[in-house]
Amino acid sequence: MSCGGSSENPDPVKAKCPPVLVDDVYLNGPTLDVNGAEDFIRESMRIITEDAVKKATDVREKVCEWHSPEDLKELLDLQLTDEGESDTRILERCRDAIRYSVKTTHPRFFNQLYAGMEPYSMVASFIIEALKPSLYTYEVSPVFTLVEDAVLRKMREVIGWKEGGDGIFNAGGSLSNMYAVNLARYHHCPDVKELGLSAVPRLVLFTSQECHYSISKAAAFLGIGTKNVYVVPSDNRYIFTEWLNVRVCDQGAVPFMVNATAGTTVLGAFDPIEEIADICEKHNLWLHVDACWGGAALMSAKHKHLLKGVHRANSVAWNPHKMLMACLQCCAFLVRDKTGLLQRCYSARASYLFQQDKFYDVSYDTGDKSVQCSRKPDAFKFWLMWKALGSKELEQRVDRAFAMAKYLAQEVKKREGFRLLMEPEYANVCFWYIPPSLRDLPDSTELWEKIHKVAPVVKERMMKKGSMMVGYQPHGDKANFFRMIIISPQVSRQDMDFVLDEIDRLGRDL
Amino acid sequence: MSCGGSSENPDPVKAKCPPVLVDDVYLNGPTLDVNGAEDFIRESMRIITEDAVKKATDVREKVCEWHSPEDLKELLDLQLTDEGESDTRILERCRDAIRYSVKTTHPRFFNQLYAGMEPYSMVASFIIEALKPSLYTYEVSPVFTLVEDAVLRKMREVIGWKEGGDGIFNAGGSLSNMYAVNLARYHHCPDVKELGLSAVPRLVLFTSQECHYSISKAAAFLGIGTKNVYVVPSDNRYIFTEWLNVRVCDQGAVPFMVNATAGTTVLGAFDPIEEIADICEKHNLWLHVDACWGGAALMSAKHKHLLKGVHRANSVAWNPHKMLMACLQCCAFLVRDKTGLLQRCYSARASYLFQQDKFYDVSYDTGDKSVQCSRKPDAFKFWLMWKALGSKELEQRVDRAFAMAKYLAQEVKKREGFRLLMEPEYANVCFWYIPPSLRDLPDSTELWEKIHKVAPVVKERMMKKGSMMVGYQPHGDKANFFRMIIISPQVSRQDMDFVLDEIDRLGRDL
Repeated sequence: MSCGGSSENPDPVKAKCPPVLVDDVYLNGPTLDVNGAEDFIRESMRIITEDAVKKATDVREKVCEWHSPEDLKELLDLQLTDEGESDTRILERCRDAIRYSVKTTHPRFFNQLYAGMEPYSMVASFIIEALKPSLYTYEVSPVFTLVEDAVLRKMREVIGWKEGGDGIFNAGGSLSNMYAVNLARYHHCPDVKELGLSAVPRLVLFTSQECHYSISKAAAFLGIGTKNVYVVPSDNRYIFTEWLNVRVCDQGAVPFMVNATAGTTVLGAFDPIEEIADICEKHNLWLHVDACWGGAALMSAKHKHLLKGVHRANSVAWNPHKMLMACLQCCAFLVRDKTGLLQRCYSARASYLFQQDKFYDVSYDTGDKSVQCSRKPDAFKFWLMWKALGSKELEQRVDRAFAMAKYLAQEVKKREGFRLLMEPEYANVCFWYIPPSLRDLPDSTELWEKIHKVAPVVKERMMKKGSMMVGYQPHGDKANFFRMIIISPQVSRQDMDFVLDEIDRLGRDL
Repeated sequence: MSCGGSSENPDPVKAKCPPVLVDDVYLNGPTLDVNGAEDFIRESMRIITEDAVKKATDVREKVCEWHSPEDLKELLDLQLTDEGESDTRILERCRDAIRYSVKTTHPRFFNQLYAGMEPYSMVASFIIEALKPSLYTYEVSPVFTLVEDAVLRKMREVIGWKEGGDGIFNAGGSLSNMYAVNLARYHHCPDVKELGLSAVPRLVLFTSQECHYSISKAAAFLGIGTKNVYVVPSDNRYIFTEWLNVRVCDQGAVPFMVNATAGTTVLGAFDPIEEIADICEKHNLWLHVDACWGGAALMSAKHKHLLKGVHRANSVAWNPHKMLMACLQCCAFLVRDKTGLLQRCYSARASYLFQQDKFYDVSYDTGDKSVQCSRKPDAFKFWLMWKALGSKELEQRVDRAFAMAKYLAQEVKKREGFRLLMEPEYANVCFWYIPPSLRDLPDSTELWEKIHKVAPVVKERMMKKGSMMVGYQPHGDKANFFRMIIISPQVSRQDMDFVLDEIDRLGRDL
């Protein structure tokens, strides 16, 4: 009947067929031979292992080789043209991309809420990249659909939800928080899905002042409006329950949820979940806990009290790519509901994906719970490392990060010219560096204006030197201060000492 | 001043320091040594190359080794426990994860709008996974920030936007479409960002019947409501301009955008952009073109006429991870506006990321344009392969996919028992298989009910055999039919013949 296609195990490359020409294109035989790329792949893997893994994580190497945007553009030669380049040239480009990138896995990278190199998770992510799975259906992603289910199950267990529940991994904690706002809204008023917000009264949500900016982004994106996010003023530790209690009752609008933060971005503080849960129950409000950063504390018997009451939440966002060091991105949105609320809220029933006449149990098809269509199996990056390390090792790592933060805070308090902003609750250590020239000045607005200018200069110098990366920011009425984030077990107390020494070296002339 | 941290190039592992104990945790020296994981990484890379690259793309191997969810759970042993496992065991798990996964890079995988193995893109994605960059700021991702900018620039040029413009890569085409709806809404009515939809009249958007389901998901998620998506009935080729022209004027609501689809999901059809652009201009509506699937045709001088008028769109969604074979996910949202609309619409000005007192040009910080916070540098996966192949090779691949689809359609028409649904406009070939037992029956409802049941059984059999993967679905009033998607240059006309032969083999007894 046909040429080369009629046998059960044809080899189309070798099959002798008359050439077929359609629209001036010859269609016999493949034009891309993956085996032919084997040398390139092998060599690139060698480069990745040497430069992006070993060298990138070597404390003796720079965290980054700084260039200004204009210089770096020249160095990288970014232009895309008609003609392709040789494999040799492409391998050079790989080396350059690695060379000029910031090494976020370097032991001296303390700039974000993620850090460090987790080899098991990295290997898992390579497997994902090679296989290109997408999670819409069991049929296309059998392994990863089940892995996601297992990880969500275990994370719910850690939260304290005994049986059932739901959830989904997705592309970032901000998206998890958006899932939460939309789900809470749908729970409060299912009509919104079809009729939109123009058909219902003005909905408002509550959050503490220290929440992540994604709550505000969610309100804008979801059509709620940023002004309908009622920000509850926090004292230093965000005990805002009383204020909340009063305001829930006296708004000229309809409140539908409260967002509590477990591990705030800048200070690493925890909202009092138990008290907020009381209020939510009383007023029938959805309680979402943004534990993207702080969720890891749940792995620790010693520290999980920080999230006391989290099992009473309706939903939780928790990013294993932060403290737990799964490869970027790895973000779970977890739901207590057992009635299929997530599916009802998000379903669109695309007939080309979610056929109901399939030959297997289609309840394993997760795609219709998602706002995404193709979706990466990020849970696998957490699952493989969890299998390798066990819950115990994860717990030890979390405990060690807490202890390390405590050590650093103690050192900050001991040292002249350093001033702690507050005792760390978690792995954020916030402090000012005061150069010798400012140390004898009286405490005044002028002094703080001067201190405000110190951190940006020290930051510029550390970037250009490449010795480390530590973030800084102003916060409320507080002048620019450093925020050290401690995560990785690659780090020791010697690195903490180094950071303080280095800031002093870089800033003592200011 | 301190131990091990005071020298410029300290080696904290070797430094002799008195042990420091905090909260029962020893803090001297790192507890994770990446170098110690070198053997594991090397061995896992060998497995990935052998099993997930070479074997996965070998036409003589199965596309998948099918197991039911219950059986596969047993095989995978998914449970997460307190104790960790040995590297040997973890490597077995890697092999198993690959073994039981669907090989979406196999030449006989035709099930989704993506397929095939692109070695350059895969290597780029490995580099990303190893380096863990996140795109919020130039400071954290210098290389990838510039690469994204270069790729967006080039894609805008291909669209026909001569100078300027904006855009962002994000986690999926569905999200790109959501970006578009939100941006169009903001452009129409900037107050929505702060005040929400409850403060403005009912907003409605238009789309063709054949659009992707993410438009409906966007309307639900963004608070617009699915009923405020006005679906324009399409004839077979979606020439819906007249209907649209009438309806824009007579709705009791405020229209703000039209979504046109370039390359529909099931049929691969193209809405007439030029005519729709005329209407949008007349009525001052935002024109978004969902070219997630069809955008690749723009790379071809021969076929770009399918998107004639696309340069008149206000925004375009285009996924290089589909026809152009960049690794999953690689999705661009492109904007014609040059006034910073995207930034104004999405900004939240988080002080800890977007400090204005930085020492470099902060216009390179892209994070405040995004609904995500951490965001992967997916553009790099496209940039590296584009550098390697050049625009010419990309064009040839696109032309070849078109020709291959044409060849397959011709074969379908030639063969007994096969019936083409429509001439392919793009790389989707849709057809029915009619087993011998049904071939002599008169054309009737009963016949089509029987044909409807054929594809699910053939699909089950091909999955269990592992010989190939081809999707099927019902569509409107059409009974279940097969949808072949042709993308990869690993594929030849012999594979097309094989698919038809195989369907006949699997279904001829039905």
